[in-house]
Amino acid sequence: MEPPHDADMSKAQAYMDKLGMTFEETTGERVIATMPVQGNTQPDGFLHGGATMSLIESLASFGAALAAGWPEQLVVGLQQTCNFLATATEGTVRGVATPVHQGRTTAVWDVEVRHAGTDKRIAVGRVTLAIRPRR
Amino acid sequence: MEPPHDADMSKAQAYMDKLGMTFEETTGERVIATMPVQGNTQPDGFLHGGATMSLIESLASFGAALAAGWPEQLVVGLQQTCNFLATATEGTVRGVATPVHQGRTTAVWDVEVRHAGTDKRIAVGRVTLAIRPRR
Amino acid sequence: MEPPHDADMSKAQAYMDKLGMTFEETTGERVIATMPVQGNTQPDGFLHGGATMSLIESLASFGAALAAGWPEQLVVGLQQTCNFLATATEGTVRGVATPVHQGRTTAVWDVEVRHAGTDKRIAVGRVTLAIRPRR
Amino acid sequence: MEPPHDADMSKAQAYMDKLGMTFEETTGERVIATMPVQGNTQPDGFLHGGATMSLIESLASFGAALAAGWPEQLVVGLQQTCNFLATATEGTVRGVATPVHQGRTTAVWDVEVRHAGTDKRIAVGRVTLAIRPRR
Repeated sequence: MEPPHDADMSKAQAYMDKLGMTFEETTGERVIATMPVQGNTQPDGFLHGGATMSLIESLASFGAALAAGWPEQLVVGLQQTCNFLATATEGTVRGVATPVHQGRTTAVWDVEVRHAGTDKRIAVGRVTLAIRPRR
Repeated sequence: MEPPHDADMSKAQAYMDKLGMTFEETTGERVIATMPVQGNTQPDGFLHGGATMSLIESLASFGAALAAGWPEQLVVGLQQTCNFLATATEGTVRGVATPVHQGRTTAVWDVEVRHAGTDKRIAVGRVTLAIRPRR
Repeated sequence: MEPPHDADMSKAQAYMDKLGMTFEETTGERVIATMPVQGNTQPDGFLHGGATMSLIESLASFGAALAAGWPEQLVVGLQQTCNFLATATEGTVRGVATPVHQGRTTAVWDVEVRHAGTDKRIAVGRVTLAIRPRR
Repeated sequence: MEPPHDADMSKAQAYMDKLGMTFEETTGERVIATMPVQGNTQPDGFLHGGATMSLIESLASFGAALAAGWPEQLVVGLQQTCNFLATATEGTVRGVATPVHQGRTTAVWDVEVRHAGTDKRIAVGRVTLAIRPRR
């Protein structure tokens, strides 16, 4: 997965744009982005777990790609596990991704998602990625 | 989480509509829905893992809610784990959710996501949910 | 990880022997083994979740190794996720491992653990493994 | 699951004794224990992933039980996810468990396992537990 860059991303980033993700920091040591609750809720009005996992997957993928040496190296998500700890009905959530392990062929990144207003922890996710040279 | 019903879901289902999910079967024994790849891709043009996990979370939640006896009983997602097995760049994927365990206080549902055209298995997810009486 | 073979495994299999695992089938399509509950319990007298996960990890690793072409190819466990569905206080449990995905560089195997006497499902595990050529 | 106590645990702790776990700290805020690599290896001579997951499950269960108010409240492991980051062939590993979330009906604990000699991170595990009043 490729990190956001200056080229025309209007099409490429359609999904992340659709969810309203806004990147605040994008390095190989840490990636941070926010996402609104509104528009990303399930039928009961709570933040959809899938939106939370989408934020987690995006942050971990960008971080691992940058740390691996993108664009020469690419990363592919193998597995994500996510625990839902609290919910949100309004406002914005912020995800912070940090590396647990950045190896030669695999990486594991942790992502913590908190409510931007209350700082309440919403979810913790862990993403396992494969690192492969661009063919 | 409440299953889709006939009431005005235009706002409630905003997220699932945004991702283009279409339900084909919704019972407490099995839930099936499709989702287009287009519009749900990451920057490289591949189906975003977060979209896949959103489909999985939605299907498992509806199934567990129906099996638990919604609307008297509600379900809350506690955890999802998802393995990404292949990717997709076009067409539609279909998720099929079936119960692994439907207990009194917890449920575990498996969801298999395949490409609707090629039948290639895209991902397998497993969702752990808590069942709670509506207060 | 190497599958069981005819050589002197007294030292190598110390851990699996200690837990009392007995292999009933060992192929690249399916691996089956049993394990006693007695001697593998936590302080309350219930089957220890770690023993269950040990059985799951062993079965998935052997299966993936055989399917990958051991001994030329080796497998390394990257991740396991396990859901505990019921417990056991006596008798024997049996684990059955089958491949979800057996690729060139990664494999995912599912393992279902049931009580050998009652056929009650005790746990379901999923193991993600890396496949690497022996150096 | 009940934490270790002063009563005769010779039978009850058979499994943890068999793996050689030694508790160094046991509170509702943090649980620490060590485990030898020798005797807990898979056929290739590496620390068996199941032994690592056994250590993780034990630490998280004890911590969550103490934090929940054992013995009035009991905890039941629902799910564990574990990422294997490095291996070990000798010496001792140490696991440190800390709470991610300690709620009224559920708890999530993180456990980090490092080699006691080199401090190399061997694995990271996350355990989801249900909290239930003793009947």
